[in-house]
Amino acid sequence: MYIEKIHGPQDVKKLNEDELVELADEMRKALIKRASIHMGHVGPDLGFIEPTIALHYVFDSPKDKIVYDISHQTYPHKMLTGRKDAYLYEEHYNDVSAYSNPKESEHDYFEIGHTSVSIDLALGMAKARDLTGKEGNVIAVIGDGSLSGGEALEGLNIAGEFDRNFIIVFNDNQMSIAENHGGMYRSLKALRESNGTASDNLFKAMGLDYIYVQNGNEIHDLIQAFSSVKDSTKPVVVHINTLKGKGLKFAENNKEQWHWHLPFHLDTGEVKPEYQWDGENYSDITANFLLAKMKKDPSVVVVTSGVPGTAGFTPAKRQEAGKQFMDVGIAEQSGVAVASGIAKNGGKPVYFTEATFIQRAYDQIAQDVSINHSPVTILAFDGSIYGMSDVTHVGFYDLAMMSNIPDVVYLAPASKEEYLAMLDWSIEQQEHPVVIRVPAVDVCTADYPVRTYYDKIGKFTVTKQGNRVAIIAPGTFYTMGQEAVQLLSEKYQVNATLINPGFVSHIDEELLEELKKDHQLVAVLEDGVIEGGFSPKIGMYYANSDMKVLAFGLKKAFYDIYDTEALLEENHLTPKHIAEDIMKSCL
Amino acid sequence: MYIEKIHGPQDVKKLNEDELVELADEMRKALIKRASIHMGHVGPDLGFIEPTIALHYVFDSPKDKIVYDISHQTYPHKMLTGRKDAYLYEEHYNDVSAYSNPKESEHDYFEIGHTSVSIDLALGMAKARDLTGKEGNVIAVIGDGSLSGGEALEGLNIAGEFDRNFIIVFNDNQMSIAENHGGMYRSLKALRESNGTASDNLFKAMGLDYIYVQNGNEIHDLIQAFSSVKDSTKPVVVHINTLKGKGLKFAENNKEQWHWHLPFHLDTGEVKPEYQWDGENYSDITANFLLAKMKKDPSVVVVTSGVPGTAGFTPAKRQEAGKQFMDVGIAEQSGVAVASGIAKNGGKPVYFTEATFIQRAYDQIAQDVSINHSPVTILAFDGSIYGMSDVTHVGFYDLAMMSNIPDVVYLAPASKEEYLAMLDWSIEQQEHPVVIRVPAVDVCTADYPVRTYYDKIGKFTVTKQGNRVAIIAPGTFYTMGQEAVQLLSEKYQVNATLINPGFVSHIDEELLEELKKDHQLVAVLEDGVIEGGFSPKIGMYYANSDMKVLAFGLKKAFYDIYDTEALLEENHLTPKHIAEDIMKSCL
Repeated sequence: MYIEKIHGPQDVKKLNEDELVELADEMRKALIKRASIHMGHVGPDLGFIEPTIALHYVFDSPKDKIVYDISHQTYPHKMLTGRKDAYLYEEHYNDVSAYSNPKESEHDYFEIGHTSVSIDLALGMAKARDLTGKEGNVIAVIGDGSLSGGEALEGLNIAGEFDRNFIIVFNDNQMSIAENHGGMYRSLKALRESNGTASDNLFKAMGLDYIYVQNGNEIHDLIQAFSSVKDSTKPVVVHINTLKGKGLKFAENNKEQWHWHLPFHLDTGEVKPEYQWDGENYSDITANFLLAKMKKDPSVVVVTSGVPGTAGFTPAKRQEAGKQFMDVGIAEQSGVAVASGIAKNGGKPVYFTEATFIQRAYDQIAQDVSINHSPVTILAFDGSIYGMSDVTHVGFYDLAMMSNIPDVVYLAPASKEEYLAMLDWSIEQQEHPVVIRVPAVDVCTADYPVRTYYDKIGKFTVTKQGNRVAIIAPGTFYTMGQEAVQLLSEKYQVNATLINPGFVSHIDEELLEELKKDHQLVAVLEDGVIEGGFSPKIGMYYANSDMKVLAFGLKKAFYDIYDTEALLEENHLTPKHIAEDIMKSCL
Repeated sequence: MYIEKIHGPQDVKKLNEDELVELADEMRKALIKRASIHMGHVGPDLGFIEPTIALHYVFDSPKDKIVYDISHQTYPHKMLTGRKDAYLYEEHYNDVSAYSNPKESEHDYFEIGHTSVSIDLALGMAKARDLTGKEGNVIAVIGDGSLSGGEALEGLNIAGEFDRNFIIVFNDNQMSIAENHGGMYRSLKALRESNGTASDNLFKAMGLDYIYVQNGNEIHDLIQAFSSVKDSTKPVVVHINTLKGKGLKFAENNKEQWHWHLPFHLDTGEVKPEYQWDGENYSDITANFLLAKMKKDPSVVVVTSGVPGTAGFTPAKRQEAGKQFMDVGIAEQSGVAVASGIAKNGGKPVYFTEATFIQRAYDQIAQDVSINHSPVTILAFDGSIYGMSDVTHVGFYDLAMMSNIPDVVYLAPASKEEYLAMLDWSIEQQEHPVVIRVPAVDVCTADYPVRTYYDKIGKFTVTKQGNRVAIIAPGTFYTMGQEAVQLLSEKYQVNATLINPGFVSHIDEELLEELKKDHQLVAVLEDGVIEGGFSPKIGMYYANSDMKVLAFGLKKAFYDIYDTEALLEENHLTPKHIAEDIMKSCL
């Protein structure tokens, strides 16, 4: 096999075009086999094999620098830059991360996991190249789904003013994760249908030169195109038309479902039994609740920015929601701002995305929503230690980010019933922006009384009255708090108070004051980083008093591909540790 | 005068075209007179008088909804919607805010002060209109400077998929605050020069219909254009070519200086003596230091996003900096991301803007910079209670926003010498993203030893060793800490310790532990909101100990057009209050 002899881009250059085609075939087979065994991105990589080969054939990485966007399409790049074993041999599948990663290779420059960044990052590299007298091409790779993101569009405009070598490879596979949204996709279609000659070319409107490659999976055509722009002395876009999922019929036929996929049977495309999960989950619960709500009330509008599946909005459910479902494409800023506009004209908007992506709309939450007291409901998925664990996708920085913005009410439900009660209350109230931290654990049922009104902002619920020690256990960590209280009782004969705060952005000063009477220690569980989070709000309330406060949570740091149980253990986030630390502290 | 009889849009409709021209003249004279007496925006409003008249003549506000962007061009709108007195009579000049403001009028829908938001907010209103069965036109007004912002570009794309009435008035005055930047401005120029017919039309590329008005200050032409799109059943852009500063020769001739202006002599345009300030200021200090640094080192690159004047980069100084100065236009996300790219390819980037605008790049600071450990230097101006006081421009939420992002080192200098030492250190170090909170007070000189290295992250400086009580006084509040210490000594015979922390993102655990030996109380001064800020980091360190912590700062809330001294007083941020509260607390 050719791929076995590829130790770096220099080995790609030794092959002739027929051999390169053979190489692509080998890579495709390896990627499909790996995908069937190892979960990960499928469609973006299968469609970008030939462009990657052509890039490394024409350009001289790492002297020429290729910067990928979000990097879900970097598996072929990794295969050609010394990391083929991680794709060829099952025992090495875990040797590489799923993203561009400078720790792995000199051919990677950034650890990237959010979209729409490659043009800017590459532009900065080109600027530094010119000022420090370096040489070489700088190439940004970006997909059509990512192009709707504000940062990418800003980048196109800035690139249009740049006056030296800068190449943008625009990988147009006609898909975001789901279908694309926005007017630009009609003009991109016109470009594809006119072999790149249609008028009102977005790239040219941004001041950029432009060439088009109709067969973006033909190595010969790609080599020609890339060769023609190599060493260009001004910015140029190479628009290539590719097929997402190419070579795997399931992925070609159902691009949304095969953007990322669990391990599957090669023959049927079915998810392997050990990965199947047919229990209840918070995504489906969300979609079903919102669909029912929308049917009853035409003013309810669900908005997302490119990730409909996050809240269970499958194509069928999107269709069912009709005009009341709005996917703005990858454009978190606009998703939040549009929701604010809806709220200000009599609609009831619910915006959702992953917690890690909400930070892309920080300014919109603060200004367009909060300063304007827009009653927007935001659902933050995976804002939890139990959520996604890639460093770029960790969601538990959300509390420091949002709970300190004035007027934002941040709710953390501890059960399904509480989640739906909060969601319903939030949609109907007209006073505040409300963020709900959707639990990132298996669905659990409330074994405590669930409130249906949350109008008294910051009002906590005491679920068990005790003395000496109180444990405040929000959201996902409520169960842990319950278990710690039980342990304190059984093992140490301490009758601790248990509090389900519900709110993580506000505190119940009345209750906290009351605790001073017969409690000496308050323990706060934090599902995430302590700094900037919920526990310091409790800590500062008692800072000038005799009450001791023990916060259990993570130190401020980046966490990457962590083992959840180990991380919890290390940080004493277990009932046993909590009980022990409490006993050690003050009793 | 016609203007005296305009109590609302209905009165505009009673006038004929000649009278409307007369009305425009009256409004212009009033605005110029007011500007000469009252500080505020000048150029944007003078150029948008005729479009505002035509909008209110053709459309029926508030049934038809006009949503302004950033709203520096809303003075004429306010004059025509019941708020003329605030522009006609000196004694009423302070009756209105400088922004779109729903508290003032039913013709305003949002409180807006950041750019690039109007398309999204208006789109949301149009969406809610359609779902709730309301009627009327929805009109977004946006300027050419704001269009480079990602949120606006995202909005154009989303609008291009909208299928009902939606009108965008694109006010092209060929300026941002300073000159525009980016390739799109070449294609906009081509549109102006071809009467709207040039190819590669950005709006059409986004899927929008388009008409062009060459004489954007001619009421007749504007009425025709707006009438032609009124009740349009699909989205359309009306591109109007206007003259920024129209009617005030100084403003027409020097658009950057007259975007916003201090009170001036009508004859000469000179700033009135009582408003002149020729002392040293941190903007000039910054520009001069960076210019000298750039000359010595070609790898130093200064980046800003549309606000060069914030750090003293006048047109002359920008020219002097040449290729080492990069204004990306209004595009904070890209400003930060480009800086990360520069840092990763051997450059030394310094990005600056107002603290309130940095939040627009939260995701880029967290992902493109911090996760990648890019040694980018960010200068945050006006991140202080002493900074801008309009609710949309308050900068002191910056600490909650940035100091909790892992790897971000946030420095708060207390003097000019310390500021420059930190800036120089930051540019040269290669380890961390560093944010420096540029003091928002008069320039002050260090009367304490200033460190030149900050490599030991979180290392505080004890400037006076005492006992029992320690005051930690970062940045701008260091002087207040000094005075409180002095008062404690003189009035209460308490020999307090004084600490200049330098760092506000990290704490000196060694020192804090040491304080436990002979201190009972630590007071922390917070130039901003306590929640999410610096003092909780100290508070949480001592939460489970006997040390009392007293935090002086603001409660989490929005603050608007506040009186600085009163706000400080109310929150006990005075040496007298600090000393008294300390004495009350624990001694």
